[in-house]
Amino acid sequence: MPPLRIAIDAMGGDYGPRATVSGAALALAQKPGANVTLYGRRHLLDVELSRLPAILAHVRDRIDVIEAGDSLPANMTPSRILRDTFNGSLYASLDALRSGDACACVSAEHTGAIMALARRDVGMLDNVARPAISAAIPTVSQKPCYMLDLGANVDVRAEHLVDFAIMGAAMVRLVDGVQLPKVGLLNVGTESSKGERRVREADMLLRASEHTRFEYVGYMEGDALFTGNTDVAICDGMVGNVALKSSEGLARMLGERLRGEFQIGWYARTVGWLAKPVLRRFMQELNPVRYNGASFLGLRSTVVKSHGNAQAEGFAYAVRRAMDEAAMNLPERLMS
Amino acid sequence: MPPLRIAIDAMGGDYGPRATVSGAALALAQKPGANVTLYGRRHLLDVELSRLPAILAHVRDRIDVIEAGDSLPANMTPSRILRDTFNGSLYASLDALRSGDACACVSAEHTGAIMALARRDVGMLDNVARPAISAAIPTVSQKPCYMLDLGANVDVRAEHLVDFAIMGAAMVRLVDGVQLPKVGLLNVGTESSKGERRVREADMLLRASEHTRFEYVGYMEGDALFTGNTDVAICDGMVGNVALKSSEGLARMLGERLRGEFQIGWYARTVGWLAKPVLRRFMQELNPVRYNGASFLGLRSTVVKSHGNAQAEGFAYAVRRAMDEAAMNLPERLMS
Repeated sequence: MPPLRIAIDAMGGDYGPRATVSGAALALAQKPGANVTLYGRRHLLDVELSRLPAILAHVRDRIDVIEAGDSLPANMTPSRILRDTFNGSLYASLDALRSGDACACVSAEHTGAIMALARRDVGMLDNVARPAISAAIPTVSQKPCYMLDLGANVDVRAEHLVDFAIMGAAMVRLVDGVQLPKVGLLNVGTESSKGERRVREADMLLRASEHTRFEYVGYMEGDALFTGNTDVAICDGMVGNVALKSSEGLARMLGERLRGEFQIGWYARTVGWLAKPVLRRFMQELNPVRYNGASFLGLRSTVVKSHGNAQAEGFAYAVRRAMDEAAMNLPERLMS
Repeated sequence: MPPLRIAIDAMGGDYGPRATVSGAALALAQKPGANVTLYGRRHLLDVELSRLPAILAHVRDRIDVIEAGDSLPANMTPSRILRDTFNGSLYASLDALRSGDACACVSAEHTGAIMALARRDVGMLDNVARPAISAAIPTVSQKPCYMLDLGANVDVRAEHLVDFAIMGAAMVRLVDGVQLPKVGLLNVGTESSKGERRVREADMLLRASEHTRFEYVGYMEGDALFTGNTDVAICDGMVGNVALKSSEGLARMLGERLRGEFQIGWYARTVGWLAKPVLRRFMQELNPVRYNGASFLGLRSTVVKSHGNAQAEGFAYAVRRAMDEAAMNLPERLMS
């Protein structure tokens, strides 16, 4: 098998090449069977490449650089992105998927921008009506729970929710190696009489059909996202988006408060100093970097979005995710 | 003004009379202008009343007890609750509102059960199409953000979302004393082109009409719930329910993990012992007790739901909330 080639939009995100170049190099060091192509301003990328630590020197010859434009201007709407012939780094790296020069793309641009361009330039799978965005959230157990959709769709029907269940289960089974993933449907309660009509209809459809490749466990409530009892949580994009972002906001607030508590008075400050290594471990848990990378499911090739504020380590996680999905040929096998 | 009388469903919740009786007494100690009537098994309530600490003895003559049935059987659906003539403590305490014996009711029963019985026995305000459930969530600033709806409605239209904005703003203005509340509409992004149709329609309606009693600040994303920039966050019941419960689940998980981190090895255990007072303060922040009490808006009288697992202190918070809403005559002034 020839090595996988991953196209990296090297200009996107809050930190641009500073995060993407060393992030890509870190991912290469961990995944021997892959190469990357960085798309962006060559002079900026070369500077970052020359700064790679010696310990990453051995991956240098698995990195290509292709000159491309900048990141997207701030606040550019998806419709303007589609209208303009803006030849930025996102456009160039997605174009590599279209032309077959790469089998997966990673970008830290805004979700809406990536999705709009990817649908146009990469295209959708024939048997998927709606793409979905999925991300992993940490749970009390060792394995994460994948939630989808996170905002690709806001007006969905019951059949779309069923598609999300099939796609999410395939991803977890193929990429994460969970033999028979447990799939739950997010709802306001666990009784069968509860919820929006489309959710109740999706529940009926999921119960009626025979799924041999995942186990449908029925309704789940929001708090069950973190119990580790479910591998995949299905919902419409509005619900998933608000739930994910409110969780991120809460984690950030609690992190700040914890820091704040250890700054009130000399006693707390002293103990806080002593507790630093323990608190650092805990802050890692609060850190979204750990599972950085949202997968765009339903496209003809693997596309992974990194958090805009991810630094090198977080970006590397998203690149590894893209490598894993591409290695398993996930797009082709998504509706299996 | 005669003292307010609050009807307490003393049997509901995970702890029953153990939490409700001392919780009601605590609330009375803090609110001189109110009385309560406890509804439930008299012999159980009398035992709890006899156990009240001496410091609460002075409120004893402001507590009446009326014999009533038990809490609802577990897993009783709202439709069965409406069909059955089950004369439990919830039924009796809501009946006190209908008959005028009390001006507000507090119960720790399930949301669906309270809402179904309250709609039937207390009735809806004429000018409100849909009731809504609202709760306060902590933010980085001193004041909370109220989110509604939290699950009373799952299939809502744009006009209902506008009603939620008016009701939420009135509550915050009258009960919490925020002169010109900032009201935001939860969405998947802050650009005007984004979101479900009903959300975009509600945004247009809120922009088009002149609101002199609140400031409409437009779309907000999930993480903005915790920034303290908005007083009221509007959404449909599915979104609010999942967002609230996932936040509760996340807070619980992080609390457990923090405790866990301080148990790994002798160093962490020692520091954890030293850090106890600091961590206890922080755990208070994680604790949903702090703002316990969900307000049912749109009914003819004040009804507040306490968390099922609230203990005395948490239940007292819900009772105080009911007292404050009733003192301001909130139901009558809700659509102002």
